Amino acid sequence: MSNLFIADFQPGQQIEDKVFLVKQKDLRTTTNGSLYIHAVLMDKTAQIPARMWQATQKIYEFIPTGGFMRFTGRCENYKGNPQFIITGLGEADPASVDPSDFLPCTDRNIDEMFTRLRAILTTEIKNADVKRLVDAFLDDEALMRRFRRAPAAVQLHHAYLGGLLQHTLSLLEIALRVIPLYPKLNLDLVLAGLFLHDIGKTAELGYETSFHYTDQGQLLGHVTLATIWIDEKARHVEAQTGEAFPEGVKWAVQHIVVSHHGRYEFGAPKLPASPEAMAVHYLDNLDAKVNLLLEQIAGDRDPESHWTRYNPGIETKVFKMDMLGNQIDSGV
Amino acid sequence: MSNLFIADFQPGQQIEDKVFLVKQKDLRTTTNGSLYIHAVLMDKTAQIPARMWQATQKIYEFIPTGGFMRFTGRCENYKGNPQFIITGLGEADPASVDPSDFLPCTDRNIDEMFTRLRAILTTEIKNADVKRLVDAFLDDEALMRRFRRAPAAVQLHHAYLGGLLQHTLSLLEIALRVIPLYPKLNLDLVLAGLFLHDIGKTAELGYETSFHYTDQGQLLGHVTLATIWIDEKARHVEAQTGEAFPEGVKWAVQHIVVSHHGRYEFGAPKLPASPEAMAVHYLDNLDAKVNLLLEQIAGDRDPESHWTRYNPGIETKVFKMDMLGNQIDSGV
Amino acid sequence: MSNLFIADFQPGQQIEDKVFLVKQKDLRTTTNGSLYIHAVLMDKTAQIPARMWQATQKIYEFIPTGGFMRFTGRCENYKGNPQFIITGLGEADPASVDPSDFLPCTDRNIDEMFTRLRAILTTEIKNADVKRLVDAFLDDEALMRRFRRAPAAVQLHHAYLGGLLQHTLSLLEIALRVIPLYPKLNLDLVLAGLFLHDIGKTAELGYETSFHYTDQGQLLGHVTLATIWIDEKARHVEAQTGEAFPEGVKWAVQHIVVSHHGRYEFGAPKLPASPEAMAVHYLDNLDAKVNLLLEQIAGDRDPESHWTRYNPGIETKVFKMDMLGNQIDSGV
Amino acid sequence: MSNLFIADFQPGQQIEDKVFLVKQKDLRTTTNGSLYIHAVLMDKTAQIPARMWQATQKIYEFIPTGGFMRFTGRCENYKGNPQFIITGLGEADPASVDPSDFLPCTDRNIDEMFTRLRAILTTEIKNADVKRLVDAFLDDEALMRRFRRAPAAVQLHHAYLGGLLQHTLSLLEIALRVIPLYPKLNLDLVLAGLFLHDIGKTAELGYETSFHYTDQGQLLGHVTLATIWIDEKARHVEAQTGEAFPEGVKWAVQHIVVSHHGRYEFGAPKLPASPEAMAVHYLDNLDAKVNLLLEQIAGDRDPESHWTRYNPGIETKVFKMDMLGNQIDSGV
Amino acid sequence: MSNLFIADFQPGQQIEDKVFLVKQKDLRTTTNGSLYIHAVLMDKTAQIPARMWQATQKIYEFIPTGGFMRFTGRCENYKGNPQFIITGLGEADPASVDPSDFLPCTDRNIDEMFTRLRAILTTEIKNADVKRLVDAFLDDEALMRRFRRAPAAVQLHHAYLGGLLQHTLSLLEIALRVIPLYPKLNLDLVLAGLFLHDIGKTAELGYETSFHYTDQGQLLGHVTLATIWIDEKARHVEAQTGEAFPEGVKWAVQHIVVSHHGRYEFGAPKLPASPEAMAVHYLDNLDAKVNLLLEQIAGDRDPESHWTRYNPGIETKVFKMDMLGNQIDSGV
Amino acid sequence: MSNLFIADFQPGQQIEDKVFLVKQKDLRTTTNGSLYIHAVLMDKTAQIPARMWQATQKIYEFIPTGGFMRFTGRCENYKGNPQFIITGLGEADPASVDPSDFLPCTDRNIDEMFTRLRAILTTEIKNADVKRLVDAFLDDEALMRRFRRAPAAVQLHHAYLGGLLQHTLSLLEIALRVIPLYPKLNLDLVLAGLFLHDIGKTAELGYETSFHYTDQGQLLGHVTLATIWIDEKARHVEAQTGEAFPEGVKWAVQHIVVSHHGRYEFGAPKLPASPEAMAVHYLDNLDAKVNLLLEQIAGDRDPESHWTRYNPGIETKVFKMDMLGNQIDSGV
Repeated sequence: MSNLFIADFQPGQQIEDKVFLVKQKDLRTTTNGSLYIHAVLMDKTAQIPARMWQATQKIYEFIPTGGFMRFTGRCENYKGNPQFIITGLGEADPASVDPSDFLPCTDRNIDEMFTRLRAILTTEIKNADVKRLVDAFLDDEALMRRFRRAPAAVQLHHAYLGGLLQHTLSLLEIALRVIPLYPKLNLDLVLAGLFLHDIGKTAELGYETSFHYTDQGQLLGHVTLATIWIDEKARHVEAQTGEAFPEGVKWAVQHIVVSHHGRYEFGAPKLPASPEAMAVHYLDNLDAKVNLLLEQIAGDRDPESHWTRYNPGIETKVFKMDMLGNQIDSGV
Repeated sequence: MSNLFIADFQPGQQIEDKVFLVKQKDLRTTTNGSLYIHAVLMDKTAQIPARMWQATQKIYEFIPTGGFMRFTGRCENYKGNPQFIITGLGEADPASVDPSDFLPCTDRNIDEMFTRLRAILTTEIKNADVKRLVDAFLDDEALMRRFRRAPAAVQLHHAYLGGLLQHTLSLLEIALRVIPLYPKLNLDLVLAGLFLHDIGKTAELGYETSFHYTDQGQLLGHVTLATIWIDEKARHVEAQTGEAFPEGVKWAVQHIVVSHHGRYEFGAPKLPASPEAMAVHYLDNLDAKVNLLLEQIAGDRDPESHWTRYNPGIETKVFKMDMLGNQIDSGV
Repeated sequence: MSNLFIADFQPGQQIEDKVFLVKQKDLRTTTNGSLYIHAVLMDKTAQIPARMWQATQKIYEFIPTGGFMRFTGRCENYKGNPQFIITGLGEADPASVDPSDFLPCTDRNIDEMFTRLRAILTTEIKNADVKRLVDAFLDDEALMRRFRRAPAAVQLHHAYLGGLLQHTLSLLEIALRVIPLYPKLNLDLVLAGLFLHDIGKTAELGYETSFHYTDQGQLLGHVTLATIWIDEKARHVEAQTGEAFPEGVKWAVQHIVVSHHGRYEFGAPKLPASPEAMAVHYLDNLDAKVNLLLEQIAGDRDPESHWTRYNPGIETKVFKMDMLGNQIDSGV
Repeated sequence: MSNLFIADFQPGQQIEDKVFLVKQKDLRTTTNGSLYIHAVLMDKTAQIPARMWQATQKIYEFIPTGGFMRFTGRCENYKGNPQFIITGLGEADPASVDPSDFLPCTDRNIDEMFTRLRAILTTEIKNADVKRLVDAFLDDEALMRRFRRAPAAVQLHHAYLGGLLQHTLSLLEIALRVIPLYPKLNLDLVLAGLFLHDIGKTAELGYETSFHYTDQGQLLGHVTLATIWIDEKARHVEAQTGEAFPEGVKWAVQHIVVSHHGRYEFGAPKLPASPEAMAVHYLDNLDAKVNLLLEQIAGDRDPESHWTRYNPGIETKVFKMDMLGNQIDSGV
Repeated sequence: MSNLFIADFQPGQQIEDKVFLVKQKDLRTTTNGSLYIHAVLMDKTAQIPARMWQATQKIYEFIPTGGFMRFTGRCENYKGNPQFIITGLGEADPASVDPSDFLPCTDRNIDEMFTRLRAILTTEIKNADVKRLVDAFLDDEALMRRFRRAPAAVQLHHAYLGGLLQHTLSLLEIALRVIPLYPKLNLDLVLAGLFLHDIGKTAELGYETSFHYTDQGQLLGHVTLATIWIDEKARHVEAQTGEAFPEGVKWAVQHIVVSHHGRYEFGAPKLPASPEAMAVHYLDNLDAKVNLLLEQIAGDRDPESHWTRYNPGIETKVFKMDMLGNQIDSGV
Repeated sequence: MSNLFIADFQPGQQIEDKVFLVKQKDLRTTTNGSLYIHAVLMDKTAQIPARMWQATQKIYEFIPTGGFMRFTGRCENYKGNPQFIITGLGEADPASVDPSDFLPCTDRNIDEMFTRLRAILTTEIKNADVKRLVDAFLDDEALMRRFRRAPAAVQLHHAYLGGLLQHTLSLLEIALRVIPLYPKLNLDLVLAGLFLHDIGKTAELGYETSFHYTDQGQLLGHVTLATIWIDEKARHVEAQTGEAFPEGVKWAVQHIVVSHHGRYEFGAPKLPASPEAMAVHYLDNLDAKVNLLLEQIAGDRDPESHWTRYNPGIETKVFKMDMLGNQIDSGV
């Protein structure tokens, strides 16, 4: 597949023989009675509505919902948004399709990020019990495979493959720099808490051909899932060492996880009651919200406005301009 | 110990040689320089402040904070509340003390209640997996010992030994009568969910010599604890049967537990998303809140008012009068 | 009219000479200048948008907004939703139209439900004053006619003809089974309160050819209306008996009505301050919310999703799967 | 009774033979074993705690709780608050007691205020139906007697005898001046709505020897009471005129009453949905809140602070200084 | 330009050579492959979608987005809303265009309103310092030019040119009539506070060719802007008089501005803590909300409904009927 | 003054000739008629209630409220709290009193902290305009004198002399380490925003002999004050440079200040709408809340509890134990 993606399509542009993921399709009748197909095509950068005039029932059935297909056609503008007019189509050779072209993905190197994360955790954590608990997670290969791939959210911030890892690593890097400024904080706990605070998202979310909540995720939530897993891993350590895992250590880490949302209305069953839990809560928000704003600005498509659209999660629009430049509208 | 309890003390009454739990003690100086002791005594029915005039440092040290002691003295009124004037004291023979006289306790028979609860669960639940999960809890003797003794709360409703069992049994009895009116609801899930919804309180609360939150309880909460235990018991069943425990069944019960508070601001990490979870949420509230009002009325000490004190949990006073009588003040 | 309803229409299906209620109509110009009609047709099961190509002004005027008409045409898919292409139309013979085909209706027998409700109220209520008050309502034939027909809501739960009666009866049945478990609760008051808690909806809502709020309903609300009516009926009883109706009884029932929403933000002018009022509040919610979830599941049209759409009233999607089956997506 | 009131007492002042209302009394033991009486005395300006040393059981019984008695003694300071040391007491001659000395009362003339209120209502209201409804209230002598005496609240603003009348008249005067600036508003409805918006307080509150909520008031609230009464008066008008009272008029006034609290969390069952209801809501708040602040300032006893105490109802302290003077603390 | 405006267009009406502001334009392909233009046209009364069939790329480019153009065509109905079919177009002579035809404008005379406002402020304010501060604003000609033109809001109440002046003047008129009823309130402060409470909107909003928030307005808000300006003007007075401007006066006025929203959730950094600030808060709301409801009613287009659409700002629909007429639906 | 402070007093300890600040005094009568003095004494570590038996009016008048005095006496326990029994007193030599012993003060070196803060700001900020604005503040000596001395709050976190500087410096140190991890964030703006976000507290709070809100602070708040000052300083820069200060820069910094509270309910007039403002909001909270918990733990006096008292600001108690130790109560 070429490097041309939907987000780059220009009105009037001719598209030749390009593979898309078909998200949805409909067979409809025009006003003069002939059939046409309406579909939604997508790749990792965007979705685009598509129409094929003079279609047949047979062509319609040929198109695979949720599958890949090659399309030819042209892009045009419709009510201020792009739309794709299909003029030809054909089967896509599975061998030629790279799934990662169809879900948004971090632009950082996943292997490098994971190596760095593992290095921080194995080097910086000194307490033997915390270390064993963290190692039990790092040694769970199936889980780590998911952890490297999962997004941090379905939408909002870090909503791309590798996003969870990127967010988590970012937090560890910050903690390494900031926590030593608070000598009474226990760095081991903060690092372990940051590593595990969102790890339940690996099962709360699905991210094979789309980003969505799994049944388990919707029913229990990533906070509860991670808490259960910490229990499980503590027993795993006990089996390894033949000694009781200290309850205080387990509860300290679990408390960070159950309280990291910081407010009841965000689904936190408990509020942060240790300095380490409080630190994790605000570090998490710092990275999540700053990225949210940066991603809002980067993703905004309207070059004429100084502001992004209103975002209900932060109850405001975001100002896109370089504030040290001279681009601001004084209104006078 | 006689059947006379603090709640029954009358102003002017003489008390002879009675055992109390000493909750607190202070040695103070009167205005003319002599020493006196101020203490708080308690039994299962109430607490009472006490004073001993003409005390000595030695007597003061003789009194065990958090322990039992025999007292003689008289009851009087102080600022509208009773107070106890100590005139004599002595060691209490441990053999003569029944701890259950010093924490409030259900007035129903705990053994009978537990037998009935076990009967309902083992008879009414039909699904083999749900049954196995519930049995794994019923077979955990240490846990069931705590379950029979635990209060349902530190204060508010069912705040007495056996209260958790009484509340849980009451819910099962209601469910048996109500759920069959909704044929689409799964009775097995509702019964299992009701049985387990508050079982985490056995570890969230301490109830040996007082009712309080444990560290574990304050850090994690009974909702999270119960969810972890369900996971544990499911693995226990797997070990017994040699077969994978069906995840759907486990999640269904866990979802009832994590959502049973029904509102985020009450610490629910998830809101009820199955009809069974919704039913458990409202049945739980029905029994808890109706009992709360009945207990408020029963516990009210002011015979001159038609209303109890304002209760912040329900944002109202409670009307104590027999509403079908003629005792109401029309205000005209 | 045959038993074929809009909810059953399949894409591609040919519909012959079927009566619909016309909810809305428009005359429009196609891109090549010819006129067409866009309309919305409905019956008790659903609404469907419709188009008639090559229409005339005369045909347009012939169609009665808010009236009945026979249509012929075919059903097709448009943007994932069904649409009806009109190919012929004609007047509907009023004699052939059954209005109950055009508003959703309970599938239970209204006469049987009302007989049962009357039996419970007249048999179970023992207090003479409560009985007289309830009888005054039961004897108001015009009101009872509306009570048998009214829905319990415009949408959400029990939003169908007979829904108010069905919801009320369901609550009485539950109360009969549950209240005796609380010997200190007054069953008479609970039954009267449940009977009357939503009776104001008979005037708050209109339900002749559609479900909507009446002016009176929108201005005053069913809570206030019912409270006024209880006053009226108490005076009616006084006129019959020649004796003053006891104020305490009247206020007890009125308090249940004014407080049954249970929270200020739901428009309750007072919060439940008697155990009976608290019981009515939670019983009402139990039946309303459990039915809401069951109806959400039953009404969901998307067979591919395990979840219904997000419902803002309960702040969640609803899980549709049989939780004791094996249909759950573990996400791993 | 002289013009000396509790609010004027100075530390060290000797009080001779003055009548107080006894709000509360206790018999207690001093540290050296002798008895003393602790009591709370009050008049319309304030309450004061009192102590009588070397008391006897007989003297204690002689003092009437909730009744009047003559006291002699001296005022002193205790923990920054005044306290009264009783040195003598005796029966109070009922003939010499003016009850209005013992509940706070408006300093305006009640008769004049009521005459003015009646004049405004009977002169300014033009619509015959609104006029008849208002007259039915004005003609209810028992109600008007209570209306002239009732306070507008138990505490907060206008919490004195005549306060309801004063608040209501103040609103009518404002409306006469303001509403003509909005020609599309119906002055008749606004005047009737203002007259009746709080009239339920005549029965919601008791104000014979203290200000408190009646049972009826606590159970139903003044909003619901007034709505019921409007219904009653409308039927009264019908009986007089022999014609149906127009429902629209009745609902318009009732809507103003049910919505005048303006927000659900303040117990409004409906929010203002007509311009007249909205006007009444804000006029009511304007007068209530401005008076609340003025009364806070007037009632503040601490001459050293520029601010009153924090008032939770308005979520702030109130600034007491003359803001155009030079008394402000710049903090620099 | 004739007096015909978009709000008056009737379906079927022919429009000849009329100037519109082009808000948006699109070039699209019809189902049979020919091009057409979709645009949105507007004037001060409304917006209307427009279509031009058989268009060309050249015509499309000829149309100026955000500029004026003459159009000929006919009006028709589309999905219940009007749409304009363009049959001809041409350049608009700038000299013939009156910008005030394209933004909604007060129907009162701006010069007369401003003269009256100035008269009130200069005549009624007695305190020399307050007067100087107010004069400093009145003498700022550039600011007063904007003040006369600015709307009071982008939408909701007074959202038209001159709306800010009209709202402010209305408040001054009310204050002149109402404040003297409260002799303890300082009229000077209230008048100054009302004059300045929203003056920051002159820079918070843009209102040249559309109503929108400026960058400055969105970043800082009108409350903060006005507070800064008062500081500036106070220094200006100091420069004129050569004397320190009394801080108490400045803070008194600034406090009114910072607190006039009255509730934190509406962006008030402080809550009203002086009687004058409280008065300004409620007077402001009175005028704003009554006008909001009147404008909702006046702007409602659906003649068949007794109610406007739901308005989230006031959480209700508005009742449009003459409540003293007989038009109300009793629902029975 | 010796190094003995109130916080170190032990029950039974004899205190000789020590200087205290007298916060409050009362002259009272004992039950046997003799006079005694009740007072509250304080130093920078704590307050203690005090009693002097057998006092005289003359001694009472000799004691200066709000002034310093030497006391001799002994410490004892009263209701679980310490109290001081005065046995002698005398004038304090002003020369011997160090005011900093009577208000809590940072334990870090103020000069060193300020030097470091200035170094960061002058070295790290690169943009010339931001630099000039920051310098204008740094060059304001009177302001910087207050900035070095001010606490960051009256209570809660950093409530000690030098606390504002310590909190601000801490934030700058964090920003230096964290912001470079977000290359798209403008470090200059973040540093300037952090420096100025709370600078208004220098005038919002008074901190000469106690910590309290000034009139100006209570009326306007530190957010508004800082915004005004930034305007002032920008004009100051303009006067120096002879060039217009770029509005975008000024607004960028002011936006950070007005939005740094992050939520309307905390008095933020605007919410963070730039990535830099969002970063400042969360960094500020991180440092404030982590310190709040650490200070809660450090200040807790009850050695027997694992938890501090409930803190309403964070809606929880704080866990005091070393979580990696073995001190936790499992509750089982």
